[in-house]
Amino acid sequence: MKDVRKGYIRPLDLRQGRVDMTHGSGGRAMAQLIEELFARRLGNAYLGQGNDAAVLPMPPGRLVLSTDAHVVSPLFFPGGDIGCLAVHGTINDVAVMGARPLYLAASFILEEGFPLGDLARIVESMARAASDAGVPVATGDTKVVEQGKGDGVYITTTGAGVVAEGADYAGDRARAGDRILVSGSIAEHGMAIMAQRESLGFAANIVSDTAALHGLIAAMRASGAAIRVLRDPTRGGVATTLNEIARQSGVGMMLQESALPVQPEVAAACEFLGLDPLYVANEGKLLAIVAPQDCDALLAAMQAHPLGRRAAVIGSVHQDAQHFVQMTTTFGGRRIVDWLSGEQLPRIC
Amino acid sequence: MKDVRKGYIRPLDLRQGRVDMTHGSGGRAMAQLIEELFARRLGNAYLGQGNDAAVLPMPPGRLVLSTDAHVVSPLFFPGGDIGCLAVHGTINDVAVMGARPLYLAASFILEEGFPLGDLARIVESMARAASDAGVPVATGDTKVVEQGKGDGVYITTTGAGVVAEGADYAGDRARAGDRILVSGSIAEHGMAIMAQRESLGFAANIVSDTAALHGLIAAMRASGAAIRVLRDPTRGGVATTLNEIARQSGVGMMLQESALPVQPEVAAACEFLGLDPLYVANEGKLLAIVAPQDCDALLAAMQAHPLGRRAAVIGSVHQDAQHFVQMTTTFGGRRIVDWLSGEQLPRIC
Repeated sequence: MKDVRKGYIRPLDLRQGRVDMTHGSGGRAMAQLIEELFARRLGNAYLGQGNDAAVLPMPPGRLVLSTDAHVVSPLFFPGGDIGCLAVHGTINDVAVMGARPLYLAASFILEEGFPLGDLARIVESMARAASDAGVPVATGDTKVVEQGKGDGVYITTTGAGVVAEGADYAGDRARAGDRILVSGSIAEHGMAIMAQRESLGFAANIVSDTAALHGLIAAMRASGAAIRVLRDPTRGGVATTLNEIARQSGVGMMLQESALPVQPEVAAACEFLGLDPLYVANEGKLLAIVAPQDCDALLAAMQAHPLGRRAAVIGSVHQDAQHFVQMTTTFGGRRIVDWLSGEQLPRIC
Repeated sequence: MKDVRKGYIRPLDLRQGRVDMTHGSGGRAMAQLIEELFARRLGNAYLGQGNDAAVLPMPPGRLVLSTDAHVVSPLFFPGGDIGCLAVHGTINDVAVMGARPLYLAASFILEEGFPLGDLARIVESMARAASDAGVPVATGDTKVVEQGKGDGVYITTTGAGVVAEGADYAGDRARAGDRILVSGSIAEHGMAIMAQRESLGFAANIVSDTAALHGLIAAMRASGAAIRVLRDPTRGGVATTLNEIARQSGVGMMLQESALPVQPEVAAACEFLGLDPLYVANEGKLLAIVAPQDCDALLAAMQAHPLGRRAAVIGSVHQDAQHFVQMTTTFGGRRIVDWLSGEQLPRIC
């Protein structure tokens, strides 16, 4: 990022100031925004290099790269905001590959007129999440678009990590007989957003589960269990993620509805809005598929970690040429947990 | 990226179809968009892994990471479009660090209602640029926002490269006595965009210079010249980039106006619009600062490359505690080439 020639302009007004088009055009106003608002909060030695790219130490291993645009609406929600969400989501996408997340890159698309104070709050939340996770924002970019061409702020984060030869938890490794685990109660991120959007009073206590999962994954790996697949069930929820894995691995799956951890207020809000928690986004949960003989050991390792306390075995993998994900319902019936064809929750992350 | 369960839905209609909210919500419509529109064009073994992150071979060395949001308007312009621009811009940010660009990550923010045919053209252009440059798009993400919350398509590209220990062309290495070179005629990208926006008939022949510069940089490095600094003068143009370098290195600079390569139609369009070509964005040019004794060798190496044929020595570095960039004008006067305080050209890249 660039620095600014100090003393030439007044400090940014974080109380009353707003983003304007000058903040995106490469001149002094942009340099000031980057220095006073971004670098001051996200500051680290890599960002401080002040070039358009960061040069970073890289341990030996394969590079893991993941990118996600974050367009969540509203920007602030119970349990988090777009800033920490953008950090957690990308760290998780890197971590579920078995990789150690090392660095983040962050690009901001700001809408003209967006309050600088809100932007500062978002960047602070991002900085805190990155610092807590030990994964610095090493490089960034800022663009400004006219009012009516954005929605406050969009953030794309890209994560880089390193994975040793041999670690492989990709979606194509599930086998018949494997067990399916989830790290905790589901649908909380999506329902926190929906409760806020729909002003559901009775659901005001639902809090997003947004969290970085690399610590939990490290604990799971340390258990020595033969983990086949790791994946974080974000957009589309548990149902979509399991369908993807079933397809990639060429297997079928059978879930037990009674085993699915769902908090009562989340279940109530889902019912009220006609949503199925299986399809609602999570931002701090993971699905693990594990060899049957290691299921208990893995479950114990997950439950021993603060982010896995409510972990549960929710189903198993079997042969199925059609790659169906099915569920035994609490009433003893069976239904297919299909792909969702279209939209359930727009702009949830 | 994800794959789709074939045969369940009709193929995408690239002639009449438009982006709708279902294309961003993680279900089958999104999987179809990714498979039929993105993966088919950008396809490579890494994207084909089908996970939320790509696992990539990494040669030994330091990691170079750079990210850029692309919000250029209009999306299609003489000489290019947002797709190839997003590839070139990020490759160049990695390459000017002396690194070999290895991989790209691409995240798309699509506006509801955007024609799928236009999106396909953009992705094709991106694929061609990536393939020509030998830098695959290894992973990606797609989000959709409501009409009026975007502007067709925004693309954030992140580049990962590798740089050997010792290669260092960062902005803080310029020293008094060094020479400043530019790889060709300036201000073409910005003026191609402006000519289209302002419907300047007489400037309709101006074509963006968008290009990937890593080949040129490899040729420059092979010359053995003691290159101090490399930088691509994009947003804010040559003037802003040189001010940044002057500040980072703690030096002053003196340019020769008569030495600046500017095509006559670009100069005319700038004059008509009241713009100074020194501040207008380039997307296929670089600035190099080199030790004086190696200036001729570097210039020759640049001019021997197709992207450096019009390379020129445009000034020199000297001591200046105030870090001013100045210019000797064609009339023999001197003026300060200051930072631009605000906006010159919004949404130029």
